[in-house]
Parts: sequence; C-alpha cells; structure tokens
Amino acid sequence: MEWTHQHLLCIDQLCARDILTIFDTARHFDEINRRPVKKIPLLKGKSIVLFFSEPSTRTKTSFDVAGKRLGADTFSLAKSGSSLQKGESLKDTGLTLQAMHPDAIVIRDSRSGAAEFLTRHLNCSIVNAGDGWHAHPTQALLDGYTLSNLWDTFQDKTVLILGDITHSRVARSNISLLHTLGAKIRLCAPRTLLPREAEHWPVEIFHDLQAACKGVHAIINLRLQQERQTAGLLPSLDEYSRRYGLDLTHLEQAAPDARVLHPGPINRGVEITPRLADAKASLILNQVSSGVAVRMAVLHLLIMGKEKQQKISGEKHVH
Amino acid sequence: MEWTHQHLLCIDQLCARDILTIFDTARHFDEINRRPVKKIPLLKGKSIVLFFSEPSTRTKTSFDVAGKRLGADTFSLAKSGSSLQKGESLKDTGLTLQAMHPDAIVIRDSRSGAAEFLTRHLNCSIVNAGDGWHAHPTQALLDGYTLSNLWDTFQDKTVLILGDITHSRVARSNISLLHTLGAKIRLCAPRTLLPREAEHWPVEIFHDLQAACKGVHAIINLRLQQERQTAGLLPSLDEYSRRYGLDLTHLEQAAPDARVLHPGPINRGVEITPRLADAKASLILNQVSSGVAVRMAVLHLLIMGKEKQQKISGEKHVH
Amino acid sequence: MEWTHQHLLCIDQLCARDILTIFDTARHFDEINRRPVKKIPLLKGKSIVLFFSEPSTRTKTSFDVAGKRLGADTFSLAKSGSSLQKGESLKDTGLTLQAMHPDAIVIRDSRSGAAEFLTRHLNCSIVNAGDGWHAHPTQALLDGYTLSNLWDTFQDKTVLILGDITHSRVARSNISLLHTLGAKIRLCAPRTLLPREAEHWPVEIFHDLQAACKGVHAIINLRLQQERQTAGLLPSLDEYSRRYGLDLTHLEQAAPDARVLHPGPINRGVEITPRLADAKASLILNQVSSGVAVRMAVLHLLIMGKEKQQKISGEKHVH
Repeated sequence: MEWTHQHLLCIDQLCARDILTIFDTARHFDEINRRPVKKIPLLKGKSIVLFFSEPSTRTKTSFDVAGKRLGADTFSLAKSGSSLQKGESLKDTGLTLQAMHPDAIVIRDSRSGAAEFLTRHLNCSIVNAGDGWHAHPTQALLDGYTLSNLWDTFQDKTVLILGDITHSRVARSNISLLHTLGAKIRLCAPRTLLPREAEHWPVEIFHDLQAACKGVHAIINLRLQQERQTAGLLPSLDEYSRRYGLDLTHLEQAAPDARVLHPGPINRGVEITPRLADAKASLILNQVSSGVAVRMAVLHLLIMGKEKQQKISGEKHVH
Repeated sequence: MEWTHQHLLCIDQLCARDILTIFDTARHFDEINRRPVKKIPLLKGKSIVLFFSEPSTRTKTSFDVAGKRLGADTFSLAKSGSSLQKGESLKDTGLTLQAMHPDAIVIRDSRSGAAEFLTRHLNCSIVNAGDGWHAHPTQALLDGYTLSNLWDTFQDKTVLILGDITHSRVARSNISLLHTLGAKIRLCAPRTLLPREAEHWPVEIFHDLQAACKGVHAIINLRLQQERQTAGLLPSLDEYSRRYGLDLTHLEQAAPDARVLHPGPINRGVEITPRLADAKASLILNQVSSGVAVRMAVLHLLIMGKEKQQKISGEKHVH
Repeated sequence: MEWTHQHLLCIDQLCARDILTIFDTARHFDEINRRPVKKIPLLKGKSIVLFFSEPSTRTKTSFDVAGKRLGADTFSLAKSGSSLQKGESLKDTGLTLQAMHPDAIVIRDSRSGAAEFLTRHLNCSIVNAGDGWHAHPTQALLDGYTLSNLWDTFQDKTVLILGDITHSRVARSNISLLHTLGAKIRLCAPRTLLPREAEHWPVEIFHDLQAACKGVHAIINLRLQQERQTAGLLPSLDEYSRRYGLDLTHLEQAAPDARVLHPGPINRGVEITPRLADAKASLILNQVSSGVAVRMAVLHLLIMGKEKQQKISGEKHVH
C-alpha cells in the first residue's frame, strides 16, 4: 500500500495510481461486505465524526456503515443538533471536534470549499462528502469502482454525463476521475444547465440526447433538483423529461452492454423512466454497495496511511 | 431452535409454537439484561437498520438496545434525515438500504402494509415495528411475554383490551396473539372507537367498563391519542376519562391478582389514573424490560434462522 | 479508588478529595485519548443513555465519545424523537428508560432540578449534563481539570468569572468547585446580569473589567446568549462588547501566564476578541479535550463505583 494523502478533498488531487489503489482496497472490503460476518476491525479504537449539515440518506449512512464495519466508533453531528445553530463558525466547530481527538472528520456542507477550509485549520484527516457544487469525490470513486468491476480499462471507453451539470458536484468529480483514468467524456444538458466554463473541460458537449448516446459505454444520469424549475432554468419538468429523461430506448444508440448510473435518489419519471431504473442495464444499486466498500477503502487508507506517515516522521525525529 | 420465518410482519403469521419459541429465547436474554455485563455477541458483524418515519422513544430505543446488546451494529434513519424527504419512494429507499447489505431492516411507518411491501422487493429480514393501524407484532409479543412470566398457560385466562380499538395496531396484534395462545378476549370501547369488523373477531364486546372488568385476569389499556377528540370521535377527554379511564377500583371487579398493561406512553389522568399506573398491579415498566428481551429474541431468530436456512439451501446446491 | 457517589448532580455534593479523584482518573484517560488506539474497554457491556432535550454539540458528543472510548454502548434520545413530544412526563420517560436497564442516564434539560428529580424515581446512575440555570458539574470539572494541568494547587490562585452570571449554570458550578479547591473567586458582570444572591456567595464582585482582571491567574469568560439583549437586559451587543468583551490587552493587568477559559461555543467579537480566542493564553480547545477525559472519569467512577457498592452490600446480605 503506497498512499501519501492525509485528506480526500477532490479527485484532482489523485493520480491514476491513487485511484486504482482505492479500487483495489475497495474490492477486498466489498467481498467482506457479502460475508455473514461483515466486520474487519482494522480501525478499532479510531473515532470518525460524520458532520453533515445537509440531509442525506445514502452518503451519511454509507460512511456510518463503512466506519463501523472497520471497527471504528462513529459520531453523527447534524446541523440541527450542532453549535452551528448557535452561530458558531465552521472553523470553531471544526477545532472543537478536533480537540476530541477524532481520526477523521467526514463533512458535507452546502458551501464549496468547506472541507478544504477545515484542512487549513485542523490536522486530522478530512473527507469531503460533498461541498456545494464543487466536489463529491467518494461519489465519483464509487461510480468509477462500479465500472471497474465491468471494465478492464477506461482507456477505450466513452462515458456520457447527462443532466444538470451546472449545479452538480457529482459531474465535476466524475469528469476529473474519468479524465484521469483515460476515458472519453461527453456531457449532455440543456443550455441553461451547462456552465460556461465547460468549454474548457476535456469533454465533448451535446444538447441532443439521441446524438449524445451514440456509441457510449456508460451514462451517468444526474438527479434533477426540482428547485431548478422554480428558479426559471427549466420550462417544466415534463418538458425536461421529454427531452432529457433517459429511457431504455436510448440504450439502443449506445454500445452493446452499455450501463446506466445515477447517484440517487432517483426521480422516477423525471430524469429516468421506471423501466430503465429497474432494468439490467441499471447499476444504481451496485453503486450503493460500491459506496460502502469505497468509503471503507478511503477511511482505511487515509487514517492508517496518516499513522504510517507519523510513525516514519517520528522515527526521523529520533535519529 | 426450530424457526422458519425470515420476516416478522404480523402475529397472524406465527403459530403458538413460534410464539413460545420467542418467549423462551427472550427469557434467556432477559436474564442477561439484568447482569452487570449486558452483552452477548451472537450478532457480531451483523448490521441492523432502524428505519423509523414516525417518532418513538421506546420502540426505536428498545430495538437499538436489543441490537447492540447482541453485538450488532445499528443504523438509525429518521424521515427528516432521509431521502424520503427528497421524494424518494419507499421501494427505492428500501432497495438502497438493502444494497448496503444489512441483515435486517426494522421499519415503522404510518402506512399499513409498509413492512409487507418491503418484503416483496427486498431479501433481507424485515421487522414490522408498527405500520399504521395494522400491526405492531413485537408489542403484542412483549405483552404476551410479560404475562407468560406470571401465567403457566393462557388457556384459562380472560384478557380485556380497553380503549381506542379502531386506531390501534396494538389491539389488532394482541387479539391475534391472545387468540392463538388460547385466551378469551374482551374488548371495551366507546362505539365511536370500535371498528365494525370487530363483530367478526373472536372477542366479546363491551361498552360498559365495570361489566367488562368482571373476572378478567389482565387488562391491556390502550393509549388515547388526543387527536381523536378533535376528529369528533369523543365528546371530551374528561368524558372519556370518566367513562373509560381505568382506576384501581376497577380491579375489584377483576380476578384476584389481575394486572394492567399499557403500551405507553401513558396519559396520566386520561386513560389511566396515576395511582393505578404506579400500583403493584401495573406491569407497564415490566413491559418495557420485556420489550428489549423480546426484540433481542426476534432479531436473533430472524437473522440467525435465515442464515441457517441459507446454509441448508446452499448445501443443497452443492449436491 | 475511593468513590461513594452514585450520581453526579452538582459540585456541592463533592469534597475536594472527590474532585481530585476525578482529576487523577481523567489524567489517565487523557493520555489514552492521545494514543493511536483510543479505547479502553472498562465499561464493556454497559449501556449509557444520552437524554438531551436541549441542543448541544460539545456536551453530548463529548459524553458520546467518552462512553464509546470506554467500550460502553450509548443511546441518544433527542426531545424531537422522544415521547416527551407526546406529552409524557419526565418521570415516566425516566422510568421507561430505566426499565431497559441502562447503567447511567446523562440528562440535559432546561428545567433546574431535572437530574435530581430523576434520582428520586430511578436507581441507575444519573449524570447532570446541565439543568436550566442551576448546575453543569462536568463543565466545572473539566475547567478545573484543565487548570490542574498547569497549577500544582488552587490555594494561592484567583479566578475571575466574567459575563452573564445570572443565567449561567457554568458560573454556579465553577464557583462551587473553585471554592472547594481553595481558590479566590471574583465575578465581573453588568448589574443586570448578576443575581442578587451573589452577595452571599464566597466571591468578590466587580463591575469594571479592568479592575476585575488585576492580578488574576485565570479568567472564565461566559458565553453571552444573544436573547439577553431582546429581553432588555443589555443596551446592545456592541455596548456589552465594549465594556465586557475580553481582549489580549486585559491580560496585561492579570498575573503573568494568566489563562482564559470559555465553555464554548464562543461568540467571536462579542464576549471575546478573535485574537484572544486564538492566542496562546486561551485554553478553549484544551477544555474540549479535557471534557472527554473528565466525562470518561465521571462515567467510570459512577458506574464501576456503584457496582462495587452493590457487590459489597450483596456480600453483606450473604453473611
């Protein structure tokens, strides 16, 4: 295990080899998660804080399951029960949490850069579990890991990311990951949901879904936040659904054995039809399983890697 | 241990022998709960999800305690922190949870049939912790277990269920359990709080509390939801209390050593007088203790029974 | 270990020797909290209920971390998810929790006397984690413990408590602790935030901050609840800040090496300037670390002390 990162903030910080190390580690834990006794106490005696100021079923529970399966103690902090309600700053809450000697803080926050901000003030491992529109690295890692179970390489693959690109940290993190692993990337979105800077990204841009699907090996379908409509970015959900809602028929344009991913929770009948969500081509539930395994890998690498580093630098001090 | 059920949805699915198996198993755990070290790691490495979309102190905490005392990891999901808030369907939330490989999902939901619905889509064990007005099987089991600690048999006993029968899953589950174990059952309620179909149940119906209490061995007193009054089903709480509020004096009509049960939380001074709630005849706190032991038994039987089944069918595959 | 208390309700119940026993025990746990494996399973198989009906990041998380590091199982009950919402009385909720056989209940409640009330009805250990304006004993213990790491004795020290004394359980508990350990105590507050009975306390009273700081060895700076302004007890936050906000310059009046404590969360720029909060003289984060260690000590002493007592009285029964 070659691992030098203390934090996981965004995919940009990882090289292809880092990503493959995470995948390999996850594969081991994935197998354990399918055993009757799903526990491997590699993080026994470690404390992990789950600091989520936005609601989330899957990400928070997934980290909680990941931590406990590794034998760590986990501590949940919701915004409603936290001092942030009393007007405490993120920095002070972070310093307070750190003073309890956790080994890692997993943070979700609506402000882009919140996780990175914490690393400037704290010295325990920080895991970004989603910060505003910026990044959601474990989501991209679990998407990539899910595909890596089907593909030997990403080099000859084309992946389409479909939906509201502008407001999607999932899209940004996946573009970074897929690019690092050598896949070709397409984006398909209405003009109102595509950011201007996308022109400078290593992607091919489409506005027509049929054309975008042609020959792709996988489609990452993003969740449509219904708020986008009230914000005037969409004529109507029906209109969106008619032009960008993904169905089984779109897969006919794609490569044989093309798969569909979605970070969930899905809006059945909006961005995806129920029959596609439940079809064999859908990897949605595989992604959830992958999520636990990938988060176990990330927590293990960050926490034990840090300890190894500290031991090494401690030895240096001795001589 | 003879146990063939994967799920616990309602009492109707259990035969008398199943119920007695639960009682016997619970008795063993009940003894452990009174030791200084209250832990028996039979479910080490198992994951139990507590998925409660209605608030509840005792039932949720009781399952949480039960799971952890058996060494399992428990994961709490409240509606407010869950994707259901984002409009995800029960089916999709269930499938998502299952993809994290839990061994059991304990669900409380306001919709009758929610637990049964999950069993049609998931393959992990489902425990119904209360679904609408339909069923609350572990409540009936803990009531029966509490009485089984006092009684050698239910065959010669008469049990009165008192209060708002219409809206009570506790009543429905208890009728099923008591009938299966051979007890005679009486119901006593105002006409507005007794469902029409009660005529077809194996019960004797009373509207006068004094008459209903005559000779009974136990009274299960139901919680009166104060909403019933605003819904126009009651003239006033005072009126209800005067006619159906249970007091020590009512026990004079009952059999010697008659006991009072209540699923809690009690409304002191509404459906029960404080002096009865605190009297020796009251089993209310015994029920809470029983609850932990019975839920340990249910979780253990469902999860380990399922594993045994899988092992057996796995062996069949081998040959 | 000489320890005879079953509950921790307020500092008044403790003699100096009790307090020093807690400090000594905490010192041992503090060292463990700094190890890579932060776990010492002295409370394995014990159940601790965290019953917080007021929001709190640090106190609740601190107890949660403390319990789990000692190997206990912890159970969180918030008001919102509890039967108190359904109108259940504190007594009935307490009895219900006790019937699940916890070893300790940690309670925070807005009503002064809530913890003491529980001890009258329950027999498991009760820890007061803050009751109204009355007491917050573990806060005073962690403040004292933090200072005990710097000071050999409290006998020759003067400690200033600054801020809203009237509404502060932290102030009341610290006065009791510092007095028991032999320190001199000063209070400094606007007249509107100082209770009348303070005249009878073993303290010297100041209304001018400069004068109050002269020669003190430590300043415990209280949080200013912004509600005080709307209640008409303060002209304005600015005015308060100008007259009673603590800054580095105030330390020039104090003894050399004087330190500043604050129970948190701090209002930067109101009762403390950012540059003082972040200065070396600030012990705010040390207090948080101390909090975990002190709460481990309290839980361990109460739970294991009680067990020892029970064993002894059990032996008496035998003879």
